[in-house]
Amino acid sequence: MTGNARVGEAFVPLDDRGLNYGDGLFETMRTTAGEIPLLDGHLQRLIDGCHRIRIPIPDPETLRAAAAAAATGLDDGVVKLLVTRGGGGRGYRPPESPGPRVLVSVHELPDAPRHWYREGVRVRICQTRIGRSMATAGLKHLGRLEQVLASAELEADDAEGLMLDENDLVIEGTRCNLFIVNGDRLVTPPVEMSGVAGVMRALVRKMALQADLECREEAVSLDELRGASEILLTNSVLGVLPVTQIPSLNWRRTRGPVTEKLMQSVAELGVEAWAP
Amino acid sequence: MTGNARVGEAFVPLDDRGLNYGDGLFETMRTTAGEIPLLDGHLQRLIDGCHRIRIPIPDPETLRAAAAAAATGLDDGVVKLLVTRGGGGRGYRPPESPGPRVLVSVHELPDAPRHWYREGVRVRICQTRIGRSMATAGLKHLGRLEQVLASAELEADDAEGLMLDENDLVIEGTRCNLFIVNGDRLVTPPVEMSGVAGVMRALVRKMALQADLECREEAVSLDELRGASEILLTNSVLGVLPVTQIPSLNWRRTRGPVTEKLMQSVAELGVEAWAP
Repeated sequence: MTGNARVGEAFVPLDDRGLNYGDGLFETMRTTAGEIPLLDGHLQRLIDGCHRIRIPIPDPETLRAAAAAAATGLDDGVVKLLVTRGGGGRGYRPPESPGPRVLVSVHELPDAPRHWYREGVRVRICQTRIGRSMATAGLKHLGRLEQVLASAELEADDAEGLMLDENDLVIEGTRCNLFIVNGDRLVTPPVEMSGVAGVMRALVRKMALQADLECREEAVSLDELRGASEILLTNSVLGVLPVTQIPSLNWRRTRGPVTEKLMQSVAELGVEAWAP
Repeated sequence: MTGNARVGEAFVPLDDRGLNYGDGLFETMRTTAGEIPLLDGHLQRLIDGCHRIRIPIPDPETLRAAAAAAATGLDDGVVKLLVTRGGGGRGYRPPESPGPRVLVSVHELPDAPRHWYREGVRVRICQTRIGRSMATAGLKHLGRLEQVLASAELEADDAEGLMLDENDLVIEGTRCNLFIVNGDRLVTPPVEMSGVAGVMRALVRKMALQADLECREEAVSLDELRGASEILLTNSVLGVLPVTQIPSLNWRRTRGPVTEKLMQSVAELGVEAWAP
C-alpha cells in the first residue's frame, strides 16, 4: 500500500494529523556533493517506523527519488523528509484508509565549527528530563517537545545537552545519540524505553563490530559517564563528535583513540567535514 | 508579551514548529447555543501551558474573541484552539523571539449517543501503554502519538480505551480522564508523570468539593479499578460518562449515585446532552 503521497507542499492543511497529534515521523539527512550518503539507512528507518505505527508505507522509490531530487546541487546541507498520516479520522483515532503526506524540504547545515571535530565539544547536562514510552521509544516521531525544552537550556558554548531519564540514567543528547568508552568497550544506552534509534548510532555500532571493538547496549549512569575514558556523540548530519568537557561533572579529556578511529570510519562515507 | 498571533489560517507553513516538533498546545472546547461554557477553564489551561513551555502567551482577549467568534451560531459542536511556537529556530532550539501561531477551527461533535449517558459505556484496556514524562505530563501538548495508537485498538462498541503506564497503573483514557469511586470517596490518578490535566477533570474535582465528597489524587492499580463501585470518565466535550462494562476485567455495574450526582452538576452548565 503506497498511500497518497503528496510531495513538496510548502503548506500543510490545518487538519493534518502531524500538526494536530504528532502523528508522523521524520528524517534529517546529510547531503554532500549532491548526494545523501546515508540515504538507505534513513529510508529503512522511516519505513520501519511507518510499519510500527501503521502509517501506510509511502512507495520507497518515490521517497528515494524525492530525496535525491532535493539533494541535487546541494553541496553540504540537509534534506528533511517528513511523513504524516495525512488528514482525517475522528479525533485521535486514525482513519481506516489514511492518505499519508510526504513533505520534503532543504535546510542549511547546523553550525558545527571545524574545531568541534579537532578539539572536541563541551556539553551540558540538561535539567529537562527525557520521558519513557514503551509505545514510541526509538522512533523519530514528530513529538519532540522534551528536546525543544532541553535545547532551550543550552548556552553559547554548549554543543549539545545530555538528557537524563527520571531514574538519572543518561539516555542521549537533544539531537545526538551518546556512546561512552568504558574500559576497552563502547557502550550506548538502549532505546527501548527512551530516546531515538539514530541512523548514525546504528552505523557506528556496525563500524565498531567491523573493527573488532566490543560495543554493548547498556544503561549508562551518571557515575559511568564520570568514569568514561571517552565520550562521543553521533548524529547523522554532524557525524561523530568527540566530547571533551562536561563542566558540571568536572569531566575533561582530550579526544581519544576510539573516537578518532570511529571518526575516521564515518568520514570514509565521503563527508569531508566529518574527518577527525 | 503577546507574540504575533495569527488567527484563522487554514494552512500552516511547512516550517511551523507545531508540525515539526509537536511544539505547541491545544484545547477542544464544547459549544452549546453559540457559547463555550468552559471557555475560562480552557483559556486558563492554555495560558498556564504556554507559560510552562515558555511560548509567549497570546493575548487572552484575542484568544477569547477568536473562540467566541468561532462558536457564534454553533449549537452543539466543538471549537478547537491550537497554539504553536510558530516558525523558526535552529533545529529543536526555540528562536529567541518566537511568533506564536494561533489556529482556530470548528468541528462536529464526536459520536456520543444518548444511551451512553443513560446506560453507561463499555471501555477497553488498551495494549498501548502511556509514557512517563516529567517535562510534559499534564500538558495538552501536540504530541499525542500514544493516544493515536491506543485509539486504533478500539472496536465499534468501545466508547473509550483506558491506558496503563509501564507499571500497570491506570492513568486515563485516550481522550478522557478517569475517576473511580472507592468506598465513599472519589479517586483520580495524578497527572505529574503521565496524562493530561483535563479541564473537565478539574471541574469535577471542584464539584466534588462543593458537594462534600472527598476526592483524592492517587495512583489507581488494576486491582483498584476492579474493586471500584463506580467508574466514570470526564472530557470537556463529552461531559461525564458512566462506565458500566470493562469486559476484560469482568467488571460490570449499573450507573451509580456518585456518577449521577456529578453528571447532574456538570449538566447545569447548560449542555443538555450531558444530563444523566
